[in-house]
Amino acid sequence: MKFSTLTLLSAALCAAGLAQAAAPSDASVQKASSASLREWIEVLALPNDSNVAADIEKNAQWFKAALDKRGFQTQLLPNQGKPMVLATLPPVPGATKTVLFYAHMDGQAVTPAEWQQESPWKPVLKERQADGSWKEIALDQLYGAEPNPEWRVFGRSSSDDKAPIIMLMAALDALKQQGLAPSTNIKILLDSEEEKGSPSLGGVINANLDALKADALLVLDGPMHASNRPTLVFGNRGVAQATLTIYGPSQDLHSGHYGNYAANPAFTMAQLLASMKAPDGRVLVKGYYDGIRFDAPTQAVMQAVPDDEVALRKRLGIAQAEKVGNNYQESMQYPSLNVRGLQSADVGAKARTVVPAQAIAELDLRTVPETPPERLLQLLKTHIEGQGFTLIEGEPSAEQRAQHPKLASLKMGGVSASSSAVRTDLNAPIGDWLRQGMQQAWGQAPVQIRMMGGTVPTGAAVQALKVPFVIVPMVNADNNQHSKNENMRLGNYFDGVKSLASILSQPWK
Amino acid sequence: MKFSTLTLLSAALCAAGLAQAAAPSDASVQKASSASLREWIEVLALPNDSNVAADIEKNAQWFKAALDKRGFQTQLLPNQGKPMVLATLPPVPGATKTVLFYAHMDGQAVTPAEWQQESPWKPVLKERQADGSWKEIALDQLYGAEPNPEWRVFGRSSSDDKAPIIMLMAALDALKQQGLAPSTNIKILLDSEEEKGSPSLGGVINANLDALKADALLVLDGPMHASNRPTLVFGNRGVAQATLTIYGPSQDLHSGHYGNYAANPAFTMAQLLASMKAPDGRVLVKGYYDGIRFDAPTQAVMQAVPDDEVALRKRLGIAQAEKVGNNYQESMQYPSLNVRGLQSADVGAKARTVVPAQAIAELDLRTVPETPPERLLQLLKTHIEGQGFTLIEGEPSAEQRAQHPKLASLKMGGVSASSSAVRTDLNAPIGDWLRQGMQQAWGQAPVQIRMMGGTVPTGAAVQALKVPFVIVPMVNADNNQHSKNENMRLGNYFDGVKSLASILSQPWK
Repeated sequence: MKFSTLTLLSAALCAAGLAQAAAPSDASVQKASSASLREWIEVLALPNDSNVAADIEKNAQWFKAALDKRGFQTQLLPNQGKPMVLATLPPVPGATKTVLFYAHMDGQAVTPAEWQQESPWKPVLKERQADGSWKEIALDQLYGAEPNPEWRVFGRSSSDDKAPIIMLMAALDALKQQGLAPSTNIKILLDSEEEKGSPSLGGVINANLDALKADALLVLDGPMHASNRPTLVFGNRGVAQATLTIYGPSQDLHSGHYGNYAANPAFTMAQLLASMKAPDGRVLVKGYYDGIRFDAPTQAVMQAVPDDEVALRKRLGIAQAEKVGNNYQESMQYPSLNVRGLQSADVGAKARTVVPAQAIAELDLRTVPETPPERLLQLLKTHIEGQGFTLIEGEPSAEQRAQHPKLASLKMGGVSASSSAVRTDLNAPIGDWLRQGMQQAWGQAPVQIRMMGGTVPTGAAVQALKVPFVIVPMVNADNNQHSKNENMRLGNYFDGVKSLASILSQPWK
Repeated sequence: MKFSTLTLLSAALCAAGLAQAAAPSDASVQKASSASLREWIEVLALPNDSNVAADIEKNAQWFKAALDKRGFQTQLLPNQGKPMVLATLPPVPGATKTVLFYAHMDGQAVTPAEWQQESPWKPVLKERQADGSWKEIALDQLYGAEPNPEWRVFGRSSSDDKAPIIMLMAALDALKQQGLAPSTNIKILLDSEEEKGSPSLGGVINANLDALKADALLVLDGPMHASNRPTLVFGNRGVAQATLTIYGPSQDLHSGHYGNYAANPAFTMAQLLASMKAPDGRVLVKGYYDGIRFDAPTQAVMQAVPDDEVALRKRLGIAQAEKVGNNYQESMQYPSLNVRGLQSADVGAKARTVVPAQAIAELDLRTVPETPPERLLQLLKTHIEGQGFTLIEGEPSAEQRAQHPKLASLKMGGVSASSSAVRTDLNAPIGDWLRQGMQQAWGQAPVQIRMMGGTVPTGAAVQALKVPFVIVPMVNADNNQHSKNENMRLGNYFDGVKSLASILSQPWK
């Protein structure tokens, strides 16, 4: 973005003239952060594979106890052996708003042999070497006077998503140490199956709607912007899937005897797919982008994101980006139409000289709030029929083969709340509150992501609670989440506690 | 075809007024045919898997002896333990032309357990039952007075390709019995590796060019037209292969974070393939069909082939044919561009939500004499570059990725003589000779296939010998060649001997 625009934005934030409340001192934040590290290391030693109920139960008990200790009223919300934790701080005198913090205790499954440490459940402290590798150092150094912010703790869920829970507790500790109360009432919900796509979250919320009642949802999860600047994420795209099959001859045919006679479904598929997308990447299906527009301030917010697209394209190995939006952030505001898999007969050593019997394209559609998946899939159907295809369900009958020269099926995948697109208005009060907290902590506006491209199961909670939400990611972008050698940078840990303490101190106007 | 055209064709053949030479009587042909059946059954008991040199050697010895007995001068042409057989009849007084008959002794490998008989190498006689199944009957009945023409002998190479060799010997026997000499000098070459694509045929021919010198090559192989009418095939298409790869990002990308940003190579492939072929099946690559045209008589010959295209399309499971030619036969006269395999990432249970790193299309091009494979592949390259692609060899480097938005490679497969297209002019003297022989035997013109769509390794012999050739198929189209339960219909056996005896009796003008 241009410097002038950035200046204007900062000026606008200042001009808003939000009162700045007393936040805990840096020393107090540092003290509380340091004190919390032992709890973090302790809970990282508890295995938390989403699939293992007994382990999830132990984590729930641990977090319940840690929150009890801090004066929360806590309960385990039953969930088929994998309870979620709900913790509610006693009402804050004078507070008119309630914020529900969401995070999750569970982690991805692990393959211990792949990790460069004894066990993913035995966290270790590491320091980066000159050659870029990581060397283990004594864990005790973590508890010393000034741990190096570049050190990292390696272990499953070190970043995703146990650190943010401990960081929130540390921020509350910092306030308490200085006799400060948070500016809003606080509730915390800890999910137990996020890594499985939160299949049970909507149900558990609906069963506990009164207890979970809040004015806003803050999701403490996910990585910060690659620049590692404080980040707010106001939405995420949803995802829907469909399988497109083009039917050719009733079985693979000899390509010598029938090449030039029986239409090849791989070519027919190519012609159909080519009709759906322009070479510049824009979807040609009529109505696909209907209803999507941004005003100038929104465009400015997206332009202000410090994406290094030259570096991004280099990392992805592509010379140029598609032309769906004017920049990366804008491109994520539109629904996508993606071929995630394509096959007709075989390639490589298994290839035979045949006219294949069929061609299959697996599609995924990233959706945005303006474009519910049902509508996009209907537009796709209309488009396919407009290209002369007869859409059928399943394998064609001999009669259908005899009647229709272009036969296809489009089988929709299931659509759930946890795969839906959700977005909070950048101008919603929750946004002002968070921006002000970040501004006060860091002296500059946070990176604001209007809507991220990927799908997170936030939609299940948002749809059940019907409140505005914002994702506040705090962990380093290169944390290897879901993979081997997951890690959390100490500097991000300390900075995140500071951000949270500042936010919790801001009055919500 | 219209009746009037058929009448004209028949009239034209009669008007040619070719002299009809004395042919052996039907009784003589029947006697020689019946007598040859024991030899056929005997040689079918010799295993002849192309891959087993010791077995091929035994077959070669057997055929050599059978031809020696008939007065041929014979020799085994060395071929790395799998000798071919060359047999030359003493010069016929007055004959000015020499015809080289080609057939092959070897057979496809077998999986005995799949066959509905004790062994593929133990031929059996079967009769079709009312329910369509085949029931074994006593082999002795084959040698009785009037074997049923609908009976079939089942066994490996019963049709492909031992029967035609024995049938040729029987036809010569029939002439001899009546004191007739063939109208041309006769040579016979028996290939030993046809089922492997005749990799050694060109070399063996070139090593024995003088001994093999002839005015025409008659290939006794392959099935007759589906109508089971006497058939002449004047050519076959060739085949070339290429692998087209479109390079997307350097690795599979998260389709949420990069869908709408990193171009999807499956779509890019679709757009490229769609640019190559019109929806009606005609190839759009510039120059692809250059030089291909037929005059009216040639078109009439193709129209006269009694293809039942309605039944064909029903059998293939397609509602309409591509519009490359006006009918099936015409369509086979053009080069094809076929996607024999297509893949990008995975489909089905293995599909993941990614922007794939690449897309691969395996192509096969059926070639015709007017369009050598090298030219077609060059046209394809030009077309791809014309669509804005940069063609590279192998995986792109980081520099190539950074410079070129559309990266592809086109890797050519090897092209050999045995996969080349060959065709003899329908008006060549060898055609007149064969048509006259068929006409005399059956009172009607044979089905004439100008060029069949599939590829047979005839090209290796034709290119080495540099003579016109015609394929004279004599076995039933439903003979299960290359498969389990290969069989030969007795009626085809007897009719084939009659055709050959008639042809051998015709003077070659």
